[in-house]
Amino acid sequence: MINPFFKNHGPFSIKDLLKDLKLTGFEKYNDDLINDIKDLSNANKNDLTFFHSKKYHSQASKTKATHCITLKNLSEHLPQECKKIYVENVLLVVSQITTKFYPDAINDNFDNTVKKIDDLKLDYDVEYGQNILIGENVKIGSNCSIGHNSIIEKNVIIGSNCSIGSNVIIRNTILEDNVVVLDGCVIGKKGFGFFPNNKKNLRYPHIGIVIIGENSEIGCGSTIDRGSMSNTVIGRNTFLDNQIHLAHNNKIGDNCILAGQVGIAGSSILGNNVMIGGQAGVSGHLKVGSNVQIGGGSGVIKDIPDNTKVMGYPSKDLRQFLKNNK
Amino acid sequence: MINPFFKNHGPFSIKDLLKDLKLTGFEKYNDDLINDIKDLSNANKNDLTFFHSKKYHSQASKTKATHCITLKNLSEHLPQECKKIYVENVLLVVSQITTKFYPDAINDNFDNTVKKIDDLKLDYDVEYGQNILIGENVKIGSNCSIGHNSIIEKNVIIGSNCSIGSNVIIRNTILEDNVVVLDGCVIGKKGFGFFPNNKKNLRYPHIGIVIIGENSEIGCGSTIDRGSMSNTVIGRNTFLDNQIHLAHNNKIGDNCILAGQVGIAGSSILGNNVMIGGQAGVSGHLKVGSNVQIGGGSGVIKDIPDNTKVMGYPSKDLRQFLKNNK
Amino acid sequence: MINPFFKNHGPFSIKDLLKDLKLTGFEKYNDDLINDIKDLSNANKNDLTFFHSKKYHSQASKTKATHCITLKNLSEHLPQECKKIYVENVLLVVSQITTKFYPDAINDNFDNTVKKIDDLKLDYDVEYGQNILIGENVKIGSNCSIGHNSIIEKNVIIGSNCSIGSNVIIRNTILEDNVVVLDGCVIGKKGFGFFPNNKKNLRYPHIGIVIIGENSEIGCGSTIDRGSMSNTVIGRNTFLDNQIHLAHNNKIGDNCILAGQVGIAGSSILGNNVMIGGQAGVSGHLKVGSNVQIGGGSGVIKDIPDNTKVMGYPSKDLRQFLKNNK
Repeated sequence: MINPFFKNHGPFSIKDLLKDLKLTGFEKYNDDLINDIKDLSNANKNDLTFFHSKKYHSQASKTKATHCITLKNLSEHLPQECKKIYVENVLLVVSQITTKFYPDAINDNFDNTVKKIDDLKLDYDVEYGQNILIGENVKIGSNCSIGHNSIIEKNVIIGSNCSIGSNVIIRNTILEDNVVVLDGCVIGKKGFGFFPNNKKNLRYPHIGIVIIGENSEIGCGSTIDRGSMSNTVIGRNTFLDNQIHLAHNNKIGDNCILAGQVGIAGSSILGNNVMIGGQAGVSGHLKVGSNVQIGGGSGVIKDIPDNTKVMGYPSKDLRQFLKNNK
Repeated sequence: MINPFFKNHGPFSIKDLLKDLKLTGFEKYNDDLINDIKDLSNANKNDLTFFHSKKYHSQASKTKATHCITLKNLSEHLPQECKKIYVENVLLVVSQITTKFYPDAINDNFDNTVKKIDDLKLDYDVEYGQNILIGENVKIGSNCSIGHNSIIEKNVIIGSNCSIGSNVIIRNTILEDNVVVLDGCVIGKKGFGFFPNNKKNLRYPHIGIVIIGENSEIGCGSTIDRGSMSNTVIGRNTFLDNQIHLAHNNKIGDNCILAGQVGIAGSSILGNNVMIGGQAGVSGHLKVGSNVQIGGGSGVIKDIPDNTKVMGYPSKDLRQFLKNNK
Repeated sequence: MINPFFKNHGPFSIKDLLKDLKLTGFEKYNDDLINDIKDLSNANKNDLTFFHSKKYHSQASKTKATHCITLKNLSEHLPQECKKIYVENVLLVVSQITTKFYPDAINDNFDNTVKKIDDLKLDYDVEYGQNILIGENVKIGSNCSIGHNSIIEKNVIIGSNCSIGSNVIIRNTILEDNVVVLDGCVIGKKGFGFFPNNKKNLRYPHIGIVIIGENSEIGCGSTIDRGSMSNTVIGRNTFLDNQIHLAHNNKIGDNCILAGQVGIAGSSILGNNVMIGGQAGVSGHLKVGSNVQIGGGSGVIKDIPDNTKVMGYPSKDLRQFLKNNK
């Protein structure tokens, strides 16, 4: 379940997909019809996939996609029957094609589908405050409460017994049961992802969502961005303090504790039972194991194995840090 | 004045208090009636107190509480006439009993007692914007202003000449005279305090409040959590910049200056005339003296004596830091 | 264009300007009429200027101001015909006199000139959400969108094709074309500038504004303060992630990228094509060149030349940092 909320505007023919990209040499595929664009593992027959780095060669060799956007020097790793479309910048082309399939996932203008909650005929039981707006395609479980001025924008599923504070904005998000979201959070907005480009950066679409597991709690003023090609996920019984920033595609495990003002850059993965002290930061694309403790103020720039305590900037073994700083 | 705002649901008999805890051996106290639960120093006759660490032995020896939850090996420090209730995890039991006395201090669901300010017959003079909500038990002094969309939830006392910005949320808080709160702050919410517990963490109640001294100013988007068993206190003429996070039970002195994005973890105490540079952090349970300067970006993990300048992570003497980093 | 928005309450006679300051010896200038107070370079005939540090001696020697507030030992750098007014604390006196010219620039109480957008006869084309307030002296270009609960306070110019999110507050700001401001930002509030003073700090006026260049984007929950005597400026096509804090008088160049939770203290200048990693901080009054990369978590406390990569706290050459921390 990568993109339950964004409407796929496909299928498109290869001709349609490539026509604005000024790519030549692929006219033989012109009439092939493409259902969707997906990553190597999730793509099926009649899907388009992409392969831009050798480190994914294992997934590449098993992809079921009919077509693949890739580099010439990577083609040997793909199945022979997979039709290759060679480009110079794989991710840039993927971004442009994804935008064609999912044009609604580029911009996050305010949701103009919302209605005042009092004007809706709710088929669910919810205690709510004043001036609340609810968008299209929102489901709310039983026994929830929603505070004043909060906006549940389109594409949100809220489980049972959830408590949403005041001044909260949520879109493209699934909250499981018993989730608490405190005041002033913004959850499910597009992440900070774009191709830098002189004069005007090129935003790529964010077709992922945010999923927050049961019994978890999000502190005041936190921001949790939705994923680009995958989801941003918070596990069960994980507690976030105030003013935390989680970037797109992060996966946080169960029973984690993140203290105030922690920030996690994009696409990092944290295991279960991870404790992070206040103001610590974790760089992007890292893997932090389970049962890890990261001291307050640390800057993590490397993977951390399971059952480790680290501190410092850059973070190192906690005992080493304390010894160095006696 | 620890908890002027939370309703004490007591008195309770010892039998009632202990019945869900499956503690045995204290049946002789079953009919004793307990008025309140307080710390060692504040407890009076017919109050219950708690004593969980030897470092409080001096206060323990002088407590007036009739009963005390404690560990067997600490009992010698308590007055002979104080009736001891031995448990394995003092703070966990205290949390459970406090919840019984103050059930409203556990959750911070939105305040459903609020009314639109236009619908209230104000007996005070206040200039106010649009869409403002005021909860029960709110008092506002003369010559105040309150910005648009702000929510003064229940249990707030605002002095004279205060300026509250827009999109502000305040509860369980006392603002003295001439306090300025800028846009988007959240003040008085429950702190980040709980007992980690597999599957579902156990939140403990926060019966403390926030007190902000006269002439102080709080910058945009700051979060100040109320105390758990004591108060979160900001002194007089103390200025906080934007996006600052103060955790529960902090005490900040007079004439302090905290620059943008500073974070102070729980239960730390800062003296007067403390200056803290941007993004610096102070760990929990520390004592920072008066006339202390903490450089921007520092991470303070030890007590700091009066009249000291520090910088670094972990912070050290400023001259040492500059020398090491020439 | 320093202060297009704040009303100049002048002209004032020197007698009027100095009467509350208890300065003597300048009675000979009593009847001179002063139009405005400006810095050394911008002041014209019949303006008052100020000169408090030798490092501005070159500008001082060329000022066209008729009068100058200065220190006795700096007077030799000023033109002979410029009438000197000697004081002990130049900036304090400047603050008091600026307050006289621009009394509206001291406080940022909520804007009571706003009206509901539905009650305005808009001469511009804008798609807007619910509960939106618009202040006096606001201009909005064509094809903009403004989200729910947002407040465009007085003195704002918004270009064409701008997208403002929900729960945003803006005042004293110019947004050029194609600017995106995401949810929960506060832009254009007074900066964190005051003279510390026992019992009650003395706020100085902020007569500068915020200018955000075309194609730029500001992430959720960011705060951008307006300038004091100059403007806070963000260049073109510069992207800010969530929870960023920019203090007063900062100038950020074109094509910059600032990741989540970055903070820039006051009056620093960044060139073009500057990339800053998450949670990094830049001290005040620094000059960061163009094509500079600052690693996540860094603390910059010195100027950085063009074409440099730095990391660390304090930041140093990136290769040095990585070598030291192998």
